[in-house]
Amino acid sequence: MEFKVEYKSANARACRIKTTHSEILTPAFMPVGTLAAIKSLDAIDMSEILDAKIILANTYHLYLRPSSKVIKQMGGLHGFSKFDRSFLTDSGGFQAFSLNKISKPDEEGIKFKSHIDGSLHYFTPKSVLDAQYDFNSDIMMILDDLVALPASKERIELSLKRTIKWAKEAIDYHKLKQNQGVGMGQNIFGIIQGGTDFEARRICSQALCEMDFDGLAIGGLSVGEENEVMYDTVEAMMPYVDNNRPRYLMGVGTPEDLVENVARGVDMFDCVMPTRNARNGTLFTSFGKFNIKKAEFITDHSPIDSKCSCYTCKNFSRAYLNHLFKAKELTFFRLASLHNLHYYLNLAKQMREAIIKNEFENFKKEFYRQRTC
Amino acid sequence: MEFKVEYKSANARACRIKTTHSEILTPAFMPVGTLAAIKSLDAIDMSEILDAKIILANTYHLYLRPSSKVIKQMGGLHGFSKFDRSFLTDSGGFQAFSLNKISKPDEEGIKFKSHIDGSLHYFTPKSVLDAQYDFNSDIMMILDDLVALPASKERIELSLKRTIKWAKEAIDYHKLKQNQGVGMGQNIFGIIQGGTDFEARRICSQALCEMDFDGLAIGGLSVGEENEVMYDTVEAMMPYVDNNRPRYLMGVGTPEDLVENVARGVDMFDCVMPTRNARNGTLFTSFGKFNIKKAEFITDHSPIDSKCSCYTCKNFSRAYLNHLFKAKELTFFRLASLHNLHYYLNLAKQMREAIIKNEFENFKKEFYRQRTC
Repeated sequence: MEFKVEYKSANARACRIKTTHSEILTPAFMPVGTLAAIKSLDAIDMSEILDAKIILANTYHLYLRPSSKVIKQMGGLHGFSKFDRSFLTDSGGFQAFSLNKISKPDEEGIKFKSHIDGSLHYFTPKSVLDAQYDFNSDIMMILDDLVALPASKERIELSLKRTIKWAKEAIDYHKLKQNQGVGMGQNIFGIIQGGTDFEARRICSQALCEMDFDGLAIGGLSVGEENEVMYDTVEAMMPYVDNNRPRYLMGVGTPEDLVENVARGVDMFDCVMPTRNARNGTLFTSFGKFNIKKAEFITDHSPIDSKCSCYTCKNFSRAYLNHLFKAKELTFFRLASLHNLHYYLNLAKQMREAIIKNEFENFKKEFYRQRTC
Repeated sequence: MEFKVEYKSANARACRIKTTHSEILTPAFMPVGTLAAIKSLDAIDMSEILDAKIILANTYHLYLRPSSKVIKQMGGLHGFSKFDRSFLTDSGGFQAFSLNKISKPDEEGIKFKSHIDGSLHYFTPKSVLDAQYDFNSDIMMILDDLVALPASKERIELSLKRTIKWAKEAIDYHKLKQNQGVGMGQNIFGIIQGGTDFEARRICSQALCEMDFDGLAIGGLSVGEENEVMYDTVEAMMPYVDNNRPRYLMGVGTPEDLVENVARGVDMFDCVMPTRNARNGTLFTSFGKFNIKKAEFITDHSPIDSKCSCYTCKNFSRAYLNHLFKAKELTFFRLASLHNLHYYLNLAKQMREAIIKNEFENFKKEFYRQRTC
């Protein structure tokens, strides 16, 4: 893939990434389409209504259902879902870890039980790439060894050792496969672990940056630690994360998290928050977030956010959305998801504009000033 | 409203109805948007994707939530939902009857308990019109006294007596209100009851046709009786239903029901079948209906129906829909609903074309010939 840092504003970066399927401008937020569909939306919603350039899908879920083989047969994720721009797929490690009480990492990989039928599976650094070759993901993530925070120094050390070992196996395997003509248009990102231990993060960053990954991801954050601890960890490790490659902070986060981490040099994000919160009635706006179910909206003619130009705000009132939410109408989920994703994608766009003008610090101040709820 | 029978093919009719909000060509199928939203869809889906000219909403549900007053304050159903074409609203009688074990019709109206909070309410011929004035429905339905089939001759006689009495009260009230400047752009349809008793149907038809309704509806069918009994009842009563007004068969039905009743002179239909079946995975096609969950579709690249030009068939494969349905993805509901509604609306359109060419009998034969599942 092509990658270029086009502008900087202090540590914040505006980059351009070109994959086989799309051009991605950063900072970039990637909507999460776990099962090859953003919940309640389809490929046309993502391209034509939201203009998302890249979305995320989950290897763990798709490997189990409908299976990598089915997706391959359907022309990969692009042919299957008909979203013809970029896909990033995670490695499945996080879900094998979080959805399974019996998940057991060992030196070679992670054993887990399917959350669907209880069947036993084993993810290794190679097998998760094989699944992602079948998906034809534009960006593949490697298998890493996650630890729940807080963790002992010993467990973090073990995680680091495994993560680095698996990273090496993954990059070697990918080079081998590409030499065999497999995954030629696909890219691979390493994942840096180390919990909130700055020294562990430094070691892992340096080890992974020595390998020939197309980009570097920061994993294992936003798993329950305080926001400030997350920001400090990112800040502490950033000098050791190669600035000539995209930097992706996995599973993050709130609008504030995006702004804070862009300020620290992160380029890419993904999070279920905009879509999951939408389904719970929580809507993001330029002035903060609120829940649509409140009685004050029953006859409110205004859109969710009068400054918002999304499909939902252009067409529907808070009163109608309040009604749909309270009546549990399916229509609500799509309208709220479209709004929240527009908010996140637009926030990324606004950050980019501020970086291009070298005004990111002002943007950040204004962002906080506007928030009243 | 303006009404004209433009073409006939034996007893099948192609008419043109003009309300304040849209021109409706018949035979017409009206998608059901119980709570001022077709489940999983919005006003733009209905206008721009499906091009529906009229949809139905339920007085019972909207009266209880968000309430007639809220809808009035939001600019009626059009302002509230942003669907700017025609709305037909039922009277609420059917839901008060079917959703409530304690529903008690007496001479003046129907007492019922809210299915939401158990509160007590009383629908009268006037009160259901008041709600519909607040909704600004293009077509209002009168309160009728339904009977569960099979019913005794006595119960049918009582139903008839009440239905005719309430019809008179309704039309008198509507004329009075219009004289006061209320509901000037609104129309009112009478509802013919009588179960499957041909004589009762004749009496009720004649009594209601003597009143100044804008259209006549056939109620109390498709409530469990055999299809043939429904068709025979419609056929037997049709000579007594004024042919200079629209004829609407309420709550019907399958594609076959539409074809059979159009052949007998019905102009308008509504039914939850296309949307409810969609949510259960049952899809309607030119060759019959099938359920998308079957294993044979797991890697099927073809659309639901290769002859269908709907949004879903133009964009997505059976394989993807099979996956979305099995994974219970919200996305499925919208795609399947769009397809099934397109099928119903298109069936109505094809019937109209056949009537215009005076080839309805051939159309009907071909319709049955193509059905293989």
